[in-house]
Amino acid sequence: MTACPLCDAAGGRVVVQAPRWRIVHAQEAGFPAFYRLVWQAHVREFSHLPAAERAESMDVLVGMEQALLRHLQPDKVNLASLGNAVPHLHWHVIGRFAWDSHFPGAVWAQPQRPADPVRLQAVEERLAEVEQDLMSLAPRSP
Amino acid sequence: MTACPLCDAAGGRVVVQAPRWRIVHAQEAGFPAFYRLVWQAHVREFSHLPAAERAESMDVLVGMEQALLRHLQPDKVNLASLGNAVPHLHWHVIGRFAWDSHFPGAVWAQPQRPADPVRLQAVEERLAEVEQDLMSLAPRSP
Repeated sequence: MTACPLCDAAGGRVVVQAPRWRIVHAQEAGFPAFYRLVWQAHVREFSHLPAAERAESMDVLVGMEQALLRHLQPDKVNLASLGNAVPHLHWHVIGRFAWDSHFPGAVWAQPQRPADPVRLQAVEERLAEVEQDLMSLAPRSP
Repeated sequence: MTACPLCDAAGGRVVVQAPRWRIVHAQEAGFPAFYRLVWQAHVREFSHLPAAERAESMDVLVGMEQALLRHLQPDKVNLASLGNAVPHLHWHVIGRFAWDSHFPGAVWAQPQRPADPVRLQAVEERLAEVEQDLMSLAPRSP
């Protein structure tokens, strides 16, 4: 059995743990508004999830996107489930800004300009507000 | 009013037209198994869709992923809604192969090896089968 980085470790700073999923802050340099929704079970493809879990994951993704839009006013939110390097279901949810180093390219593409440390810091200072909303996405304990 | 490339044109070779969405073949060199689900209405973010339309789009995405898995046996399917360049809701659905030019990187990243024209051709020859399945995703006319 091959070790899986998302079975063995969180994959970022944990913001919320729920029974079937967790949200982590990706801690990628240059992209402070970068979170991941990681499925707790080791599943390769989105379509391998049962329908009820797909619906649950979509509701969480929408809540994550809305939290970014509400608190950070990004120019665009990027959603992506790639998993080529780590084939354990996870979604990248990234608030993108017209001034960021790669915009309008993907965060995986080549940079188009230097990072802007002042603006990046201003985004970082609002992550606590975003994360309050993310925590509210977890199902309430009975 | 700014012209929108996905309001003004299909965005690829049209495979299916449905009332609320269309599927196009992206025709990106080096990635024959690359389709897009384009929402017909001009909506920027996924969370701006009404819940019923989000659910419909997820069902279509899942059907697209399953069609790729069934007929092409990709090593991974990539799903992404970015829209930084064209902020009109569309999903990239891409069958990825361990031998493709960018694997395990994103298709937007730098290539890791030359394209393999023989294997690419073999994928292209099976797209008609994939597209039969994609056509079946459209709602039946009453």
